[in-house]
Amino acid sequence: MSSPIYGAIEAGGTKFVVALATGPNEILARTTLPTATPPETLAAVVAFLNQAEDKHGKLSSLGVASFGPIDLHLESPTYGYITSTPKAAWTQTNILGVLKESFSVPMGFDTDVNGAALAECRWGAAQSVDSCLYITVGTGIGGGFACGSRTLQGLVHPEMGHVRIQQLPQDEFPGVCPFHQNACVEGLASGPALEKRWGCPGHELPPEHEAWTLQVDYLAQALVNMIVVLSPECVVLGGGVMKQSHLFPPLRIRVQELLNGYLEAPQILEENQDYIVPPLLGDNAGLLGALTLGMDAG
Amino acid sequence: MSSPIYGAIEAGGTKFVVALATGPNEILARTTLPTATPPETLAAVVAFLNQAEDKHGKLSSLGVASFGPIDLHLESPTYGYITSTPKAAWTQTNILGVLKESFSVPMGFDTDVNGAALAECRWGAAQSVDSCLYITVGTGIGGGFACGSRTLQGLVHPEMGHVRIQQLPQDEFPGVCPFHQNACVEGLASGPALEKRWGCPGHELPPEHEAWTLQVDYLAQALVNMIVVLSPECVVLGGGVMKQSHLFPPLRIRVQELLNGYLEAPQILEENQDYIVPPLLGDNAGLLGALTLGMDAG
Repeated sequence: MSSPIYGAIEAGGTKFVVALATGPNEILARTTLPTATPPETLAAVVAFLNQAEDKHGKLSSLGVASFGPIDLHLESPTYGYITSTPKAAWTQTNILGVLKESFSVPMGFDTDVNGAALAECRWGAAQSVDSCLYITVGTGIGGGFACGSRTLQGLVHPEMGHVRIQQLPQDEFPGVCPFHQNACVEGLASGPALEKRWGCPGHELPPEHEAWTLQVDYLAQALVNMIVVLSPECVVLGGGVMKQSHLFPPLRIRVQELLNGYLEAPQILEENQDYIVPPLLGDNAGLLGALTLGMDAG
Repeated sequence: MSSPIYGAIEAGGTKFVVALATGPNEILARTTLPTATPPETLAAVVAFLNQAEDKHGKLSSLGVASFGPIDLHLESPTYGYITSTPKAAWTQTNILGVLKESFSVPMGFDTDVNGAALAECRWGAAQSVDSCLYITVGTGIGGGFACGSRTLQGLVHPEMGHVRIQQLPQDEFPGVCPFHQNACVEGLASGPALEKRWGCPGHELPPEHEAWTLQVDYLAQALVNMIVVLSPECVVLGGGVMKQSHLFPPLRIRVQELLNGYLEAPQILEENQDYIVPPLLGDNAGLLGALTLGMDAG
């Protein structure tokens, strides 16, 4: 008997990555589609999966890891919807409903960052431990948390980019968060905050630029707040801004300084280069998150 | 056949509460013991449970909800220990090991605040939802989180009292946290912080005292950080300081102000008197937490 085939959809704000796979290392077909309007994009997703099924065989289940906010309450009338996103065209989009019209298979649905946390837990940087906090630092800042095969959901789902931090005295930037201005980490340390503060995208700033001193402090403050609340066994930082790999060593040191000996765990207090890490799955963390959701739904 | 009998031990820094029960409303025997040295206190706990067993019947399982830090890693050689507590006599105390010498029954073990979160989820303020954040504001500030029948454990366990918050400009108090001084909520808003800042215990300050303006702001900042990370469906605030019930209405308002419309959940945005609440189980939250741990272990 052949292996079950899973569908995986990473639904992002700028692109959708869609794949058919039998496992994380066995991608049978894969494509990237621009995030246009919901009818256009979802039709292209369905067409791609249909074609891939014709070639490789029928899906046994499907996972969707989506940008948000999304409705994760199974009993809610809008379960499976993207709800009040700033991307206006996608507001109140029944993404899971559209997919269910074309595929009668079990579906898993979660946030992109919860999916990535799950994938890093299963196959990535956190595979030797039980829990993973996954933070993406890019256009926005978001966080997901997985413990074993479960992710953190709740009233809504975590919105960790809005953790409050303290602006440094030398920084008079007003912040970019439309809700909290310069009071939350997304307002001070997202990609757009970097670009607006310094007049160019972060990847154009040299490693010795003072931008990174602020960036390290702000991310460290946010990580400390997340760590004391969640007590994760591994912290994975992905997203465009974290491609600046020179950020990791000073970030690890600053987290230790701020914790100041609190939390008696050698992972944090002694050496934490295995504790605060880039995604082992790299740019595939999101897609493999969707795949994990699909496999677990099947 | 008679109902199973459970043992429950709430191990606190100043007192132990011990009970034999068949359920949350059926306490068969109960006592309160001072927290002296580990040999003294644990001998008294065992003696009480033995006597209660003679009268009511044998325990089928036992739950322990303890002050911490404690070791919750099942595979660790110090699982079941109170580890590096500031209460020197209790450092590296094998509390579960001592109990196992006297009782050969399944045992549940967790932090006092995780136990309280579990009990409020099962029988208390969060019984109609799936998840509960429980915060105690007293000698220290601690937090626990339960989702269904599971609690949040991880690298250590949550240490939410050390969430970083921003001191208000009019407040020059240096803080009482030995690790983070005035940078965390425990340093600025615990019972000892109140007493040291104002020269008398919080319960002696009238409701209109400026102390409470600071207290509300600091607790609200901390709650916002916890809420955006955990997305709990109910937030229960217990502990000595929260007996000042006048704190709840302004605290709910300040949390809304700080979130500033973010998190599209009517529980938070419209009316949140059912979202941020005192423990429905009152002073029994800790003991019933231990009972819940015992019932789940059986």
